[in-house]
Amino acid sequence: MKLAIYGYGNLGKGVECAVTQNPDVELIAVFTRRDPSTVKTLTGIPVYIADDILSFQDKIDVLIICGGSATDLPEMTPYLAQYFNVVDSFDTHANIPVHFDRVNAAAAANGHTALISAGWDPGMFSIARIYGASILPDGQDYTFWGRGVSQGHSDAIRRIEGVVDARQYTVPVPAAVDAVRSGKNPQLTTREKHTRECYVVAAENADKARIEAEIKSMPNYFADYDTTVTFISMDEMKAKHSALPHGGSVIRTGRTGLNKECGHVIEYSLKLDSNPQFTSSALVAFARAINKMHARGMNGCFTVFDIAPADLSPLSAEELRAHLL
Amino acid sequence: MKLAIYGYGNLGKGVECAVTQNPDVELIAVFTRRDPSTVKTLTGIPVYIADDILSFQDKIDVLIICGGSATDLPEMTPYLAQYFNVVDSFDTHANIPVHFDRVNAAAAANGHTALISAGWDPGMFSIARIYGASILPDGQDYTFWGRGVSQGHSDAIRRIEGVVDARQYTVPVPAAVDAVRSGKNPQLTTREKHTRECYVVAAENADKARIEAEIKSMPNYFADYDTTVTFISMDEMKAKHSALPHGGSVIRTGRTGLNKECGHVIEYSLKLDSNPQFTSSALVAFARAINKMHARGMNGCFTVFDIAPADLSPLSAEELRAHLL
Repeated sequence: MKLAIYGYGNLGKGVECAVTQNPDVELIAVFTRRDPSTVKTLTGIPVYIADDILSFQDKIDVLIICGGSATDLPEMTPYLAQYFNVVDSFDTHANIPVHFDRVNAAAAANGHTALISAGWDPGMFSIARIYGASILPDGQDYTFWGRGVSQGHSDAIRRIEGVVDARQYTVPVPAAVDAVRSGKNPQLTTREKHTRECYVVAAENADKARIEAEIKSMPNYFADYDTTVTFISMDEMKAKHSALPHGGSVIRTGRTGLNKECGHVIEYSLKLDSNPQFTSSALVAFARAINKMHARGMNGCFTVFDIAPADLSPLSAEELRAHLL
Repeated sequence: MKLAIYGYGNLGKGVECAVTQNPDVELIAVFTRRDPSTVKTLTGIPVYIADDILSFQDKIDVLIICGGSATDLPEMTPYLAQYFNVVDSFDTHANIPVHFDRVNAAAAANGHTALISAGWDPGMFSIARIYGASILPDGQDYTFWGRGVSQGHSDAIRRIEGVVDARQYTVPVPAAVDAVRSGKNPQLTTREKHTRECYVVAAENADKARIEAEIKSMPNYFADYDTTVTFISMDEMKAKHSALPHGGSVIRTGRTGLNKECGHVIEYSLKLDSNPQFTSSALVAFARAINKMHARGMNGCFTVFDIAPADLSPLSAEELRAHLL
């Protein structure tokens, strides 16, 4: 399978690394909107300017689009799905139906196969939710995120006046996780599920009390949470907060039996040293599936719900049945 | 969807209970090899003698076959797949390839759709293994079972002279689970992964020392494990060991990055009050998928690897994208 990467940030670099672990996958090119002469890939893969991509139509089986969900992917994925089989990690949950329709129209009209919203949430966590809900319909699911870095929340802090750098960790409340795991089916408010830890480098002479107050009162991002703000030096930021760990759990609890006499707990959890590395490893596996589905004539847009697990694997059906079933 | 149950033990009763939680599913009939007049269903579903089943060919969308893997399913599933869409929970891992080929031949030749080896292992644990291996190819997976009742091991103890009743619990070794979760990638022997706890009711005047020695030295079942044997009264057996809890974890650890600098842990775990109740809840969801796949003209035999998660759900693709993705 011949892959290409469109967008070369943390996620694109992660795809490049993941390809080295998948012998059936060849990385053809990286496309960037920057000046290609300023971009050097980790493994020497050639870099082209984004506008050149249409000349690669017969050289690429699947294009992995590594852009941001706010402004990049809503434009890029529908456009590129006209010309390529594509995979993206669009993660603005509320806008998925609109994004799906636009990508589906472009892919279906041009005989291409597209997958949106692959990764871990949306992605593997969505898969955990659908399996859990389908097997235990009389139940409830809970998603906890963290402990891990939320890049969106970190960015929100950085926009406050007097902030030089910031890192925000989302942390599940242990008592809430324990209550869910026990099968108690608790009703949990936003505040009861997660806390937010902020590490902030302030400018010299900045008013730290004001910065802290602005963070804690920021609507949507922090106001509904118990938030702690810790001011640190730039040296400490670089030494202790350079990584992008993340993870979390999807827990489905439910009851079965004529009188609901049996309780069951299904838990899917991730502990990731690097959020973009794991996401990009998932993207490569899902790109394999999209390539197989395209070969079977399945055109249009799909989500992770539409992909049979066997299509993610390089192994044959016989090998899978003999060794993994 | 119209379902029927073939075989009415713990698993068949579990399917009957699960149907009550799935409004899109109707249970038509239970078939038994016993005298139907001696079998009373939990919800009043009519019971027929197994031999009558061929007269139900146009009344049943999917038949769930609830037999044992040792002798029932290897005969029943290929036979019934000639006449019905079928689902079974065949769990003798080593014989899956042969069972698959026989069921596939019968189903494909007659335009039916079959699923073998659904449940949780094989089943949901297999799905956890394939997702984990596909996303983290540079890694290793570990499956731990328990704490839970192994019916095969309990039966093996019951066959020993002087044993009136027995219950065997498979228990993961906590230190082994912790070492795996830490990402240390340990090499673990059979003995290091699980212990076996046996609760035995002995006949009056039976030689308990001999029974204990026979259990602990039984090849395949106990000889490779640290096994404890506790003799209890029949009253205690009934009071404390009547349930069939089970569960366990599939853990995939792997590393990514050009220099393998990032470690990741994926864990899928189950904590089940009743093994047959959970298995049968899974069977009903997978039967829904087989019904959908049959409607799309997908004939032959499949495994859980071939089933897209969306097919397990009663929700539409639009609902799934809007609410579960």
